[in-house]
Amino acid sequence: MHVEAMGGNTHQFRLSTNHMQGSAMTNTPMSVVHKRVFLFAAAYDFFCGESTSLSSAARASMRDALGGKGAGLAEMTASGVSVPPGLTITTSVCREYYDNDKTLPAGLFDEVLNELRAVEASVGRRLGDVANPLLLSVRSGAKFSMPGMMDTILNLGLNDQTVEGLSSLMGERFALDSYRRFIQMFSNVVLDISKDSFEHLLDDAKTRAGASTDAELGAPELRALIAAYKDLVLAQTGSAFPQDTHGQLQGAVEAVFRSWNNDRAIYYRNLNGIDHAIGTAVTVQAMVFGNLNEQSGTGVCFTRNPSTGEPYLYGEYLLNAQGEDVVAGIRTPKLIFRLKNEMPAVYDELLRTTARLEAHYRDVQDVEFTIESGKLYILQTRTGKRTANAAVRIAVDLANEGVISRETALTRIEPEQLNQLLLPSFTGEALAAAKMMGRHVATGLAASPGAAIGRIIFDPNEAAALGAAGEKVILVRIETCPDDIHGIVPAQGIVTARGGMTSHAAVVARGMGKPCVSGCEELKIDLHNELMRVGQHVFHKNDVISIDGSNGEIYAGAIPTTSIKLSSQFHTLLSWADDVRELGIRTNADTPEDAALARKFGAEGVGLCRTEHMFMSQDRLPVVQQMILATNEAERRVALAELLPLQREDFAGIFRAMEGLPVTIRLLDPPLHEFLPKADKLKEEIAELRTQGGADDAIAAKEALLRKVDELHESNPMMGLRGCRLGLLYPEINEMQVQAIFEAAIAVTNEGIVVQPEIMIPLVGVVAELQIAREVLERVAFDVMTSAGTTIDYKFGTMIEVPRAALTADEIAEHAEFFSFGTNDLTQMTFGYSRDDAEGRFLQHYLEGVNVNGAKRKVLMRNPFEVLDQGGVGKLMKIAVEGGRTTRPDLKIGICGEHGGEPSSIAFARKIGLNYVSCSPYRVPVARLAAAQASIASGQEGDK
Amino acid sequence: MHVEAMGGNTHQFRLSTNHMQGSAMTNTPMSVVHKRVFLFAAAYDFFCGESTSLSSAARASMRDALGGKGAGLAEMTASGVSVPPGLTITTSVCREYYDNDKTLPAGLFDEVLNELRAVEASVGRRLGDVANPLLLSVRSGAKFSMPGMMDTILNLGLNDQTVEGLSSLMGERFALDSYRRFIQMFSNVVLDISKDSFEHLLDDAKTRAGASTDAELGAPELRALIAAYKDLVLAQTGSAFPQDTHGQLQGAVEAVFRSWNNDRAIYYRNLNGIDHAIGTAVTVQAMVFGNLNEQSGTGVCFTRNPSTGEPYLYGEYLLNAQGEDVVAGIRTPKLIFRLKNEMPAVYDELLRTTARLEAHYRDVQDVEFTIESGKLYILQTRTGKRTANAAVRIAVDLANEGVISRETALTRIEPEQLNQLLLPSFTGEALAAAKMMGRHVATGLAASPGAAIGRIIFDPNEAAALGAAGEKVILVRIETCPDDIHGIVPAQGIVTARGGMTSHAAVVARGMGKPCVSGCEELKIDLHNELMRVGQHVFHKNDVISIDGSNGEIYAGAIPTTSIKLSSQFHTLLSWADDVRELGIRTNADTPEDAALARKFGAEGVGLCRTEHMFMSQDRLPVVQQMILATNEAERRVALAELLPLQREDFAGIFRAMEGLPVTIRLLDPPLHEFLPKADKLKEEIAELRTQGGADDAIAAKEALLRKVDELHESNPMMGLRGCRLGLLYPEINEMQVQAIFEAAIAVTNEGIVVQPEIMIPLVGVVAELQIAREVLERVAFDVMTSAGTTIDYKFGTMIEVPRAALTADEIAEHAEFFSFGTNDLTQMTFGYSRDDAEGRFLQHYLEGVNVNGAKRKVLMRNPFEVLDQGGVGKLMKIAVEGGRTTRPDLKIGICGEHGGEPSSIAFARKIGLNYVSCSPYRVPVARLAAAQASIASGQEGDK
Repeated sequence: MHVEAMGGNTHQFRLSTNHMQGSAMTNTPMSVVHKRVFLFAAAYDFFCGESTSLSSAARASMRDALGGKGAGLAEMTASGVSVPPGLTITTSVCREYYDNDKTLPAGLFDEVLNELRAVEASVGRRLGDVANPLLLSVRSGAKFSMPGMMDTILNLGLNDQTVEGLSSLMGERFALDSYRRFIQMFSNVVLDISKDSFEHLLDDAKTRAGASTDAELGAPELRALIAAYKDLVLAQTGSAFPQDTHGQLQGAVEAVFRSWNNDRAIYYRNLNGIDHAIGTAVTVQAMVFGNLNEQSGTGVCFTRNPSTGEPYLYGEYLLNAQGEDVVAGIRTPKLIFRLKNEMPAVYDELLRTTARLEAHYRDVQDVEFTIESGKLYILQTRTGKRTANAAVRIAVDLANEGVISRETALTRIEPEQLNQLLLPSFTGEALAAAKMMGRHVATGLAASPGAAIGRIIFDPNEAAALGAAGEKVILVRIETCPDDIHGIVPAQGIVTARGGMTSHAAVVARGMGKPCVSGCEELKIDLHNELMRVGQHVFHKNDVISIDGSNGEIYAGAIPTTSIKLSSQFHTLLSWADDVRELGIRTNADTPEDAALARKFGAEGVGLCRTEHMFMSQDRLPVVQQMILATNEAERRVALAELLPLQREDFAGIFRAMEGLPVTIRLLDPPLHEFLPKADKLKEEIAELRTQGGADDAIAAKEALLRKVDELHESNPMMGLRGCRLGLLYPEINEMQVQAIFEAAIAVTNEGIVVQPEIMIPLVGVVAELQIAREVLERVAFDVMTSAGTTIDYKFGTMIEVPRAALTADEIAEHAEFFSFGTNDLTQMTFGYSRDDAEGRFLQHYLEGVNVNGAKRKVLMRNPFEVLDQGGVGKLMKIAVEGGRTTRPDLKIGICGEHGGEPSSIAFARKIGLNYVSCSPYRVPVARLAAAQASIASGQEGDK
Repeated sequence: MHVEAMGGNTHQFRLSTNHMQGSAMTNTPMSVVHKRVFLFAAAYDFFCGESTSLSSAARASMRDALGGKGAGLAEMTASGVSVPPGLTITTSVCREYYDNDKTLPAGLFDEVLNELRAVEASVGRRLGDVANPLLLSVRSGAKFSMPGMMDTILNLGLNDQTVEGLSSLMGERFALDSYRRFIQMFSNVVLDISKDSFEHLLDDAKTRAGASTDAELGAPELRALIAAYKDLVLAQTGSAFPQDTHGQLQGAVEAVFRSWNNDRAIYYRNLNGIDHAIGTAVTVQAMVFGNLNEQSGTGVCFTRNPSTGEPYLYGEYLLNAQGEDVVAGIRTPKLIFRLKNEMPAVYDELLRTTARLEAHYRDVQDVEFTIESGKLYILQTRTGKRTANAAVRIAVDLANEGVISRETALTRIEPEQLNQLLLPSFTGEALAAAKMMGRHVATGLAASPGAAIGRIIFDPNEAAALGAAGEKVILVRIETCPDDIHGIVPAQGIVTARGGMTSHAAVVARGMGKPCVSGCEELKIDLHNELMRVGQHVFHKNDVISIDGSNGEIYAGAIPTTSIKLSSQFHTLLSWADDVRELGIRTNADTPEDAALARKFGAEGVGLCRTEHMFMSQDRLPVVQQMILATNEAERRVALAELLPLQREDFAGIFRAMEGLPVTIRLLDPPLHEFLPKADKLKEEIAELRTQGGADDAIAAKEALLRKVDELHESNPMMGLRGCRLGLLYPEINEMQVQAIFEAAIAVTNEGIVVQPEIMIPLVGVVAELQIAREVLERVAFDVMTSAGTTIDYKFGTMIEVPRAALTADEIAEHAEFFSFGTNDLTQMTFGYSRDDAEGRFLQHYLEGVNVNGAKRKVLMRNPFEVLDQGGVGKLMKIAVEGGRTTRPDLKIGICGEHGGEPSSIAFARKIGLNYVSCSPYRVPVARLAAAQASIASGQEGDK
């Protein structure tokens, strides 16, 4: 393939990677690059040496020498793309400049001028030519991107003469305004005169002219302003504004080198760990003009539709215009396909060029172009931003087209993006309109993603009743507790004024895939009067609001949402992920509905079925309370007998939904007081009953409840009587659960469905806890199976969620057929951070930074409840995996904490050899992709 | 030295260890012992082989063959001590017996009878001799003690004929009763007839005779009973009770072998990990009679006074009596020195023999003896139990006498015993009298040892006032909280109805060395009416009680206590401990008084000075509350400025007390709500103020306080906003503390006193916490020192009390000059056991055993808050030590949790290479001794 390139030369188009295998390391290494100035059109060849493409070492050399920007322009030019010509001064010159007490090396500027001739020839204009002046941009470009940290100068080459030449080419106002801007920029960057002085003069000019924007200043005003600018320069520097265009160029190059060591650049390098010694390159490029005539124009296009991923050129353009005209929105741009009619040859070249760029960079490109007198120039190309939907389609399409491998396709999507596809979101237009109309109310924490609309309801009972009646409600609470679960289930979304990302509301909502905004402290909620205040606004019960749990925003009124449709590419991509990944993906599901949903999303089993949620439903809670209030085992067994058939149906439903797949059931875990009302609430109710002359036995019942609540009160319930501790003190509770599990398993097996129950004992810290519990419960299992005359294939295992369990995993594995890391509790105890308290208190400060002598210093980079702490909690997990597998080499190990759905935590799980992760149903696709990416990344690191 | 031994042979007296060094392994190993029956008098020689004493291997062989009892009797006999003669059948016979389908090996019984002749000759009586019958005991004796698990038969050799011979020797009633007992025991053990049948016959006989005790049955009744017993045997077995004494002996030997595998023996071996295959030996010994005539007698003596340790023979005896006469208390025994007059030769021999036994066993012996017709027999010797005081004196005396080494002396005292010596206790007589008079009231937990007497006071303010006035009070509370500290300090002792061994009251009391009984749930305390009920009793305010925190007992009225006098031996022993130990011993002390006391007890520095206790005193609390209520930093600083001079004085006092020694000061640690009243209390007070028309501003102040209490409320405060988290959010609190520390240090230095402050940041879990805190606080230190123009030698370090700190100790050591393990919190978080809750809830059940199918199964062997959990918490500590020292090889590391005073935890601290432990002042002597013992033990294991 031959393409015409800048400078009149003909270049072989080169693919940078296809030919790499087998090519010898013949490229010029950095250390022997003595050339100091490279034309864009010459650099690539130079670094290729005798090879026909760049080895990765040669690519690195080129980047070292030319910086990121220079290397990119060289590569694009070499690819046959029409780029405005230019040259790059290497980073070694910058180092010499500093070594040499901030003077340019001898002979350097002659080299620049020498190479500049080729640029001038290519564009057909010359620097300082009064009739046909070449204008230049002078930019920095280090090996590592330091956006905005160093200086840039545009329109270089203008002076009192050339501005008149430009004026006759481009129009007077454009030329004068460019000159005015150039003086201001050059004076600031090169001559070190404050911007403010120029801004004052500009403001004065506008005031005099009665103009409100710069654009309203006409040519006469601009001429006067230029004169004033020049007077300012003379007054400040004692010299006139430099009219010598070569001098301008030299000054600009030196200024860019100087800007390598300005304060913000140094700060940025410190922040990002960039070596201060590497220096910057300087790129000098011809400026081209889309507003030169009607054969000129400018535009932006994507190689594929960035919203849908459909494979066609998508974009807009304007003829006889500059990029800023498009941005300013003064003229309405045309859709790109119209260019085919207006400038067919240019359109064809644009199609070819953009296709080449996409093929070269192997991804959708976002391309800025300018047409100057019928000639197409590509100003910039970069990877195109896209929606989650488009990202999936593009990745799959590119792989199917053979442009990228399936593995690469899998790495092209942020796992989190998949989650978006499963959740409703507000339509862009409606959202913009709502914002414009001032309907944004408040911002809380983005606790559980997705958009929801509904009437405000403060009372969970009312929410339950309305939800049952098919009404859409948003449950608004100061904070939620397990008591409120019946109001959460039917609500469209949840809002709380208190509580962090791992508060009860947040955790429950994420588990259900239900939108939630938590910890929105701006809301002043008055439960008594059923209203909430935000600033001046008051919202009453039944007022409609819309919430977006993806960003924590709350809006007044309804905002329409998009509907969810999963593309075929979505399923294709995830099937590729399944081919690659080694980790199993299970789900945390407490109901048959959740289990079925997760299975639809690809879950390979239930990793955590929390039985306590089954105890919370309104019809069961009174029986559970009766069980708790029992004063002896016999009474307790009466209540448990009532719960048995209900639990049996719970488990049977989940077994049916997960037919053939393993189901891990955790026995009762929370402290019993969670099933009882709060003491304060009971006290109020008792007082009310008393004043209203309530029945004695009703009062007595409440008082008994209150005594039990007081009795069960713990200072630190998270470290109190819960988990297996409860089961050891009241074994009959777990016995009932195991009986229900096995009776359900037998019933479902009899329906011809394969079941694989895995019974999990929570909160074990001492091996005897597991040993004793297992002994008692396996006896129950045995009895149930014996009396049914059948056997069920089951496993007994434990959560590893107490640090001591991880430390003594070798002992615990003697009695556990599987481990499941409860990383929520493990994080809590390893850090000593109460989940219920830390987020609202110190954790936010730790993440945002604590005040140290007026500055903010971060204590934690990531919230360990969201992103697994590999350095601390992860170490314990490694100890547990090693210990457990020492005793039992085939020990099955998974994660069932919140981290099971978080990509970096999933990668860590793979790294330490876990068998699976388990996450909420809506995160299953995320986990599948993340697990695949982890496998791919480890293969690249060679640790596979 | 020659002594006469049994059997007419003369034995060289041998010391078992003195000659061991250098002796070759010439003794007969177990595998070549073919001899199956050993006379006591022959065994030692046999196992010595050609050597003159037992090597440790030979000693083990002897024990393997003869069991513990047989080996002991052989060794005593060989030592020249007069022991009733006998023989031992080896354990190998037991193994053969089982291998051979429970039959005795051929020829065995002939060997027994053969050796028995020597026994008969030695005693001058023969088995089955009607005129002069030899009676035998037949006992089990395995290598490892299995007390009471196997069978024993006494009085063997009695039959219808010999009983008449015995009758004429000992009196009719004695002979008949012995025969009756023998039939019962033999029939049960050998013939497998239930004991109950005999007991029924005995009861019938007593009923008929109108006798209430066995002793009231006369000879006729006993003769009838014997006849009834024999009828029973005939009826049950179809054969008459065996009259052949040789047959009796063979039956008894086989029965002892069978009892090796009875259920309780198997259970016991399973429990104690004893090999089921080793078998038991059988010891057959002549019975001797102290009630034969007036030249006979029996007695018990100690080689030194077991109460005081004074070195003289201490004991009692009765002439013409059996051991049970002494026990029954029917006749009053005489003091041992009287025997010198009554039987001078026997007394001399007793003196010589007991001295020899003490020298042989190198410790005080508790010796049982019988004199039969002027001949002294030693029946048993064992290490004598002694009081703590005596233990110290005896150990030091024995070392000074050259009997044992100083190292051995140090191992002779349980470290816990030393603690008793520092605390008052009730005098034995007064205590016995109080018990007899029914003054024992209730028993709680032995939370803090020592005896105390005082008036019951329920209100801490009143206790403070009375205490200040010099009154002795016992503070009685349902439970205590930091608020009550001003009432605890002046009280003699503390009683609480709730809370475990690590409840607030218990911890504070132990810290102060103040007696405390906690968790006494029998007490129903009515704070409102200032009374407490226990069963029927009601105690009012000002009633006097006595409490003993060493065993949890509470008594009505005053019981006199002993005063504390530390002996010179106490100091000698501890000085020897100091010579041996490698661990440093520091103290936890919050006041100059505590620091001085601990120093007196030998503390080498303060390992933990808790600054929060300094905030609790009544005069400071309002200022602290003002600081907490401050709405901004400026207000907070005003309150802190008031606290600064007070804190400065606190620190100065401690620095003076610890002149020259390091003082580790922990910056503020507890959550702020601990300095505020409880919400319920405030609500009550507000309600009361309202009903009584209290002043508006008083109500408003309480309401503001209540709002703050609500705001600071945390679900799990132990894992909430405390420790360094507090310091990072409100740095001005720690800044004030550091300023106070350095101002105090400078002031005290100016007095010419050397100070070594070590500033400790609590609850670090993330290295940035320490890094930032240290940076801020070292600046403060620098400023204070600069403005004073002086420097102080100080260190900055951290607590390791959060599991994550231990796991990331390598990172944390970058910024810490020392670590101090806060093992209380570390245990809490590693186990996930809330200290405030666990003890009262599940921990007691875990320690006592949970119910499993009606049996109790222990989940935990030790309370991890009392005895460091080496398997879990200890692993984390090892990780921390290794990590910390990788980064900083000279890192100083200590323990400052409660475990710092617990002997096994101290040994562990030494093992993992800690530099010191720190404990409450009263435990410093305990820790010094325990540390020495750990060094000695490790030297013996060869790990030194």
